[in-house]
Amino acid sequence: MALLVTSLQAGAQTTPKFADAQASDPVTMGWMAGSPPPADKLIQFADGTFRKFPQIRWSFSNYRQFVPTSTVARGTGPVSVLPMAARQDIDGVSFQVLGTGETMTWAQSLGANYTDGIVVLHKGRIVYERYFGVFKPQGQHIAMSVTKSFIGTLSAMLVAEGVIDENALTSKYVPELKDTGFGDVTVRQLLDMTTGIKYSENYADPKAEIFDHTRAGGVTPRPPGYEGPKSFYEFLQTIKKEGAHGQAFAYKTVNADALGWVIRRATGKSIGENLQERIWSKLGAEQDAYFTIDTVGTEFAGGGFNAGLRDMARFGEVMRQGGNYNGQQIVPRKVVADIRNGAGKAEFAKAGYKTLPGWSYRNMWWVSHNEHGAYSARGVHGQAIYIDPKAEMVIARFASHPLAGNPNNDPTSLPAYHALAKHLLAHPQ
Amino acid sequence: MALLVTSLQAGAQTTPKFADAQASDPVTMGWMAGSPPPADKLIQFADGTFRKFPQIRWSFSNYRQFVPTSTVARGTGPVSVLPMAARQDIDGVSFQVLGTGETMTWAQSLGANYTDGIVVLHKGRIVYERYFGVFKPQGQHIAMSVTKSFIGTLSAMLVAEGVIDENALTSKYVPELKDTGFGDVTVRQLLDMTTGIKYSENYADPKAEIFDHTRAGGVTPRPPGYEGPKSFYEFLQTIKKEGAHGQAFAYKTVNADALGWVIRRATGKSIGENLQERIWSKLGAEQDAYFTIDTVGTEFAGGGFNAGLRDMARFGEVMRQGGNYNGQQIVPRKVVADIRNGAGKAEFAKAGYKTLPGWSYRNMWWVSHNEHGAYSARGVHGQAIYIDPKAEMVIARFASHPLAGNPNNDPTSLPAYHALAKHLLAHPQ
Repeated sequence: MALLVTSLQAGAQTTPKFADAQASDPVTMGWMAGSPPPADKLIQFADGTFRKFPQIRWSFSNYRQFVPTSTVARGTGPVSVLPMAARQDIDGVSFQVLGTGETMTWAQSLGANYTDGIVVLHKGRIVYERYFGVFKPQGQHIAMSVTKSFIGTLSAMLVAEGVIDENALTSKYVPELKDTGFGDVTVRQLLDMTTGIKYSENYADPKAEIFDHTRAGGVTPRPPGYEGPKSFYEFLQTIKKEGAHGQAFAYKTVNADALGWVIRRATGKSIGENLQERIWSKLGAEQDAYFTIDTVGTEFAGGGFNAGLRDMARFGEVMRQGGNYNGQQIVPRKVVADIRNGAGKAEFAKAGYKTLPGWSYRNMWWVSHNEHGAYSARGVHGQAIYIDPKAEMVIARFASHPLAGNPNNDPTSLPAYHALAKHLLAHPQ
Repeated sequence: MALLVTSLQAGAQTTPKFADAQASDPVTMGWMAGSPPPADKLIQFADGTFRKFPQIRWSFSNYRQFVPTSTVARGTGPVSVLPMAARQDIDGVSFQVLGTGETMTWAQSLGANYTDGIVVLHKGRIVYERYFGVFKPQGQHIAMSVTKSFIGTLSAMLVAEGVIDENALTSKYVPELKDTGFGDVTVRQLLDMTTGIKYSENYADPKAEIFDHTRAGGVTPRPPGYEGPKSFYEFLQTIKKEGAHGQAFAYKTVNADALGWVIRRATGKSIGENLQERIWSKLGAEQDAYFTIDTVGTEFAGGGFNAGLRDMARFGEVMRQGGNYNGQQIVPRKVVADIRNGAGKAEFAKAGYKTLPGWSYRNMWWVSHNEHGAYSARGVHGQAIYIDPKAEMVIARFASHPLAGNPNNDPTSLPAYHALAKHLLAHPQ
């Protein structure tokens, strides 16, 4: 039955009605089933259907089928053990929906958020794990802007090692950006998204620069006769300055790609090579991960990472354990501590995120400053890694919410996470 | 130093001169290095450079960077152990080059064959393993027509289970092929490549149907204004009959894609799902594998499989051990025995392969009928899995030879394999 839901919460996009999670289940809908799939079940890159709802319920779990990609290898070693300790009491944990105050259970929240997969670690053990639709434990799902938290962490590691100077201008590493809006931006300003460049991330506005950006990178289709920039690097060189840098948090995906260029120039290696060598191959990951790339092989640092859910949870566990996981200090302790401490709340508040009061943004992580010290990697349509240090809890979630902006799913996810954290603290097993 | 070599052997293509393996090393050449790579180091899909020599020395190890792909997952279980027992005496094993009689060592043969990676298992242990250029143990390389041996094995497994009737017409499973050249072809004729369809595999002829085939599948670029078939399925429906079926072996890649369609219709699952469920997830593979796909998501059954080298060796070991590996009967014993027995030598001889006298072709495997009972999966430019039952030896090789046809590398590889087999028999360790 095709139930319809509306978007209730303050800060959300306009509220068209969408089929709910059950009605939009991609297996039920039969996307790409058949040999060949019938025309009305076909999802394509060229016509843009791969980014439309409800097709995204299938395509987000199969991104490599639409665009060229590059591998982030797990390496050839053994898989690290994530002990299983499933709990039956989690589905019933209840919470109040932000804005409406409605009571909802954890189990209900999964549908409300169009969850494709979710895993909860408590003290390093899997206490909860669910997969929906076409997403499977051995599958890979696009992480969207959760990607940025990997880029931010890598950058902070390189800063800690002295390979990158956070106070240097971006153009020290990338001279091509000297005469652009990035010309007087520091690496630190990229990392904390306080650049005053002209760049709109409003997914509801077809003229927003985010779409010029993804067209340039070949991540979304180009119209016939397209004459715009043909790679991420070309696009970065078109960026203009709009206001002062370092004054306010303003979420602009292009900062991550500028940072990606800095990393490449500072290390002489691609983003994928850096991630593989420094993090992914040390996790004991179950699977290779991958990046979507442009036509010159550049990874989409702003949002092109795809990985398995348990491996995302492993990375969350790296952070929760102060960088130490699988018998190694993977991320320096001080890098993790710096992220946990967050950045300026006043600068963050200027961005007006109604669902994130009192938060800040540091090294491309979102920091709650709540009583548990929780912080999160976040990506559009509901992708998240959520780390609650006090509750010793890590949540990794992939989703395909019909609306891109996370204000659309925060009301039914952030309070759920916090309620679960409190439940785990109160009822340890 | 850019040494030049010529193609000496009978049965090879015309003999332009190519940079040798050392001079064409893709790391030395700097392909795709830099951010962005300079124009003369760029390899692209659209301009066809990804399939040109010497660029293939890079691109064959990075195929997913050029085309959409789909995953064949390793699953989430442990990696199976391939014990290491490296031997130092293999590089010096010598043999006579076919045709010229020149003496060459094993070590020399690796360069002569433009080897990207090679692993030798003896009694299930890795006795030799080498990687060259950009290919790494954790990397994936295109297997070209080695893919077909996976398709043939899957098909034979389904025949053994009674899911597919090998004596049925292809059109029983795929009615769309009834009025094409495949109309009166049996599944068995597809499996043994004895169809009389009109289809040229001559890589030296730009008008050969193999190129129509790969353009239809989007595996090679289409010219502006392209109006031809837009998927593998559309292409398959254009095939005409040329001669009688079942009379002679004639190597035509399209038979594998027709078989792929049969498998999909008989099982209701994609090739990737079948391979994953029946073989790949049971190997204890180190890595996911992947297929190149067309725009409706169809795997290129004729040549689109990419995998890690050790995992290819694991599959060879499955076959060597009569289908039993990693604690499971993965392929039925009778399927392996049937492949080892081969097919009609007389039918095979009609194809005129000068480097393969007395061989046959069964279930998409090449069977030598030599005194060791060796048989092989083979792909253009030098891809191979070579199984020598008597010597208890499996060789997996990836390569990027400048010339597609294996008659160009057989003279420096087949006698090397046989010499090594005899050496291992004579000097067990």
